[in-house]
Amino acid sequence: MVYQIDYMKLAIKEAIKGRRKQEVPVGAIIVDKNGNVIAKAHNLVETRNDSTSHAEKLVIEKALKITGNRYLNNYDIWVTLEPCIMCASIIKQTRIRRLYYGLEDKKGGAIDNGVRLFSDVNYKSKLEIYSGFYASKSQKLLKEFFRDTR
Amino acid sequence: MVYQIDYMKLAIKEAIKGRRKQEVPVGAIIVDKNGNVIAKAHNLVETRNDSTSHAEKLVIEKALKITGNRYLNNYDIWVTLEPCIMCASIIKQTRIRRLYYGLEDKKGGAIDNGVRLFSDVNYKSKLEIYSGFYASKSQKLLKEFFRDTR
Repeated sequence: MVYQIDYMKLAIKEAIKGRRKQEVPVGAIIVDKNGNVIAKAHNLVETRNDSTSHAEKLVIEKALKITGNRYLNNYDIWVTLEPCIMCASIIKQTRIRRLYYGLEDKKGGAIDNGVRLFSDVNYKSKLEIYSGFYASKSQKLLKEFFRDTR
Repeated sequence: MVYQIDYMKLAIKEAIKGRRKQEVPVGAIIVDKNGNVIAKAHNLVETRNDSTSHAEKLVIEKALKITGNRYLNNYDIWVTLEPCIMCASIIKQTRIRRLYYGLEDKKGGAIDNGVRLFSDVNYKSKLEIYSGFYASKSQKLLKEFFRDTR
């Protein structure tokens, strides 16, 4: 059993894997209710030439396949960056239990920024949201990436 | 070359295919700028036991694979029902040119209902939206389905 805080370190390791492939460094992992990591993924937009291949979408797709479940209501997602509207709505659709994210994304985020998807009372979502884990590490990775490659 | 209006008929045919598999009858197709249908899909949530396997998501995934493109900015999507927030945000993410949908979904829709995703001026989306095509046919299919199976 790893301590909770270590999950974000695993997500950051995924982000670093992405960076090595010239991907925007974002990583995500899915953890079951017993604390086991069941899936890991990083951004693969460049590699797959697919604008939808964000870390969160990919890790959720893996988790759905691995579990054979329609919903992931007993699972948590850890992601290094605040999810965009696409990933936020996939999190909603799959009924993930808890979202832990690292750095806020004031421009592209859809949780505490933008449409603030889960703040809409009409959605009746039970998602628990926690943020700020290793935010400065995530920011450093992104800054270095954009400085070096774009 | 088929007349534009016929594309929704093709999408409805997909919805009917879904119904035969005990799926909520929703169908979608992708059309290129020359009017060629490049991908078709229907809802496969039950078949795949995956809450994200909506017709629009599946048809977009097919189109991305077929074209090898990161974005679908030269393509249009025709779908029998107003897209949900997940599918709406995938349409946004892939920069689809035009969305044609059939029946409004007052409860689950995210285009002209709910969050009205593309009405947010901050998104600067160029998506053109047209609706109402064969709406009554789509409604009949859905009503029959829910009457018979749920």
